[in-house]
Amino acid sequence: MNILPPALTKVIESFEKLPGIGPKTAQRLTFYLLHIPQEELERFSENIISLKKNTMLCSVCKNVTTQDPCPVCANPGRDIKSLCVVQEPTDVLALEKTGMFHGRYHVLHGAIDPLNNIGPDEIYLDQLFTRITHPSDQTEEIILALNPSMEGEATAMYIQKQFSNIVSEISHPIKITRIAHGLPVGADIEYADEVTLRRALEGRRDY
Amino acid sequence: MNILPPALTKVIESFEKLPGIGPKTAQRLTFYLLHIPQEELERFSENIISLKKNTMLCSVCKNVTTQDPCPVCANPGRDIKSLCVVQEPTDVLALEKTGMFHGRYHVLHGAIDPLNNIGPDEIYLDQLFTRITHPSDQTEEIILALNPSMEGEATAMYIQKQFSNIVSEISHPIKITRIAHGLPVGADIEYADEVTLRRALEGRRDY
Repeated sequence: MNILPPALTKVIESFEKLPGIGPKTAQRLTFYLLHIPQEELERFSENIISLKKNTMLCSVCKNVTTQDPCPVCANPGRDIKSLCVVQEPTDVLALEKTGMFHGRYHVLHGAIDPLNNIGPDEIYLDQLFTRITHPSDQTEEIILALNPSMEGEATAMYIQKQFSNIVSEISHPIKITRIAHGLPVGADIEYADEVTLRRALEGRRDY
Repeated sequence: MNILPPALTKVIESFEKLPGIGPKTAQRLTFYLLHIPQEELERFSENIISLKKNTMLCSVCKNVTTQDPCPVCANPGRDIKSLCVVQEPTDVLALEKTGMFHGRYHVLHGAIDPLNNIGPDEIYLDQLFTRITHPSDQTEEIILALNPSMEGEATAMYIQKQFSNIVSEISHPIKITRIAHGLPVGADIEYADEVTLRRALEGRRDY
């Protein structure tokens, strides 16, 4: 016998659909919502509804934004010679927090993942190539900041290969670089996995 | 420079207020919501708004319900001689899943916790005593199914003490029991903490 009221079950089911939220967590969150004031629940609801209505993708870099072009693309202070390719809008946030990168971004919204039927056409790769082959484009360095995973690697390789095909269309030289893979700060060599250690060795630099 | 659109920030902030959801998780959930269809977002919102509107507390047992009295209290098949006192509505769900208990419940909606300013008046304790001292009440056993924590212990002790004060008002005998504390099924004695082991020894039974 299910003694849970439908009003609760519905919210539990909505929460369960979110990534990383299991049935127990969904239940805990829902019962927690019962304790917060109705006005706050209504504000929460409105924010969810207007989430997609008030946002769009920047026509230049495909990042999530409220204005087009987005603040980064519209900022004349950013270095237009440097273009950082990332998988997700959250990666832009993480890179911006470092305060180290002053160029522009291109957000792919995913990575090539044949096992999940995500090919080059499912992510914003064409837009990347259209962007760099545009006559007015002044990109001199494409920095690949993709995840060090199978999908990230596949995407990096695809970009490298496609780039060699279109490089003749570009009037000025462009180099492709990728962010370093190696030991994260604070890690122990003893506990590092072999692949990370191998990458760290391969990527060694003069001291 | 905050490059996150306000529509996103608002949802992230709403998620962050939920228990166990930190800034990173809130961000991940919000970006995930961007990928799901608007209709589903609207359904999610409606469910949250109607959560409290469509639910109330049962006037008998204080459990969350859509009808008063709740299905458990209204069910003539339940044993009216047995009353199980729990802290939260989710505890009722957990106990119902065992299929072992066929009596009725009383939900306190918390436990006595002086450090957080939660005294006996902040939870539904008075209602418990009013309920069992009512002339028509036929409770013969009160089962305390409170959490084995400081707060749960304090609440159990308070109930025991108050009960001895009011026992003269009740015409028939009532006994108070509590669920067993001991080793959970599947646990290793080697790794059990001393308090649990002590409880398990104290609570030993004839084999």
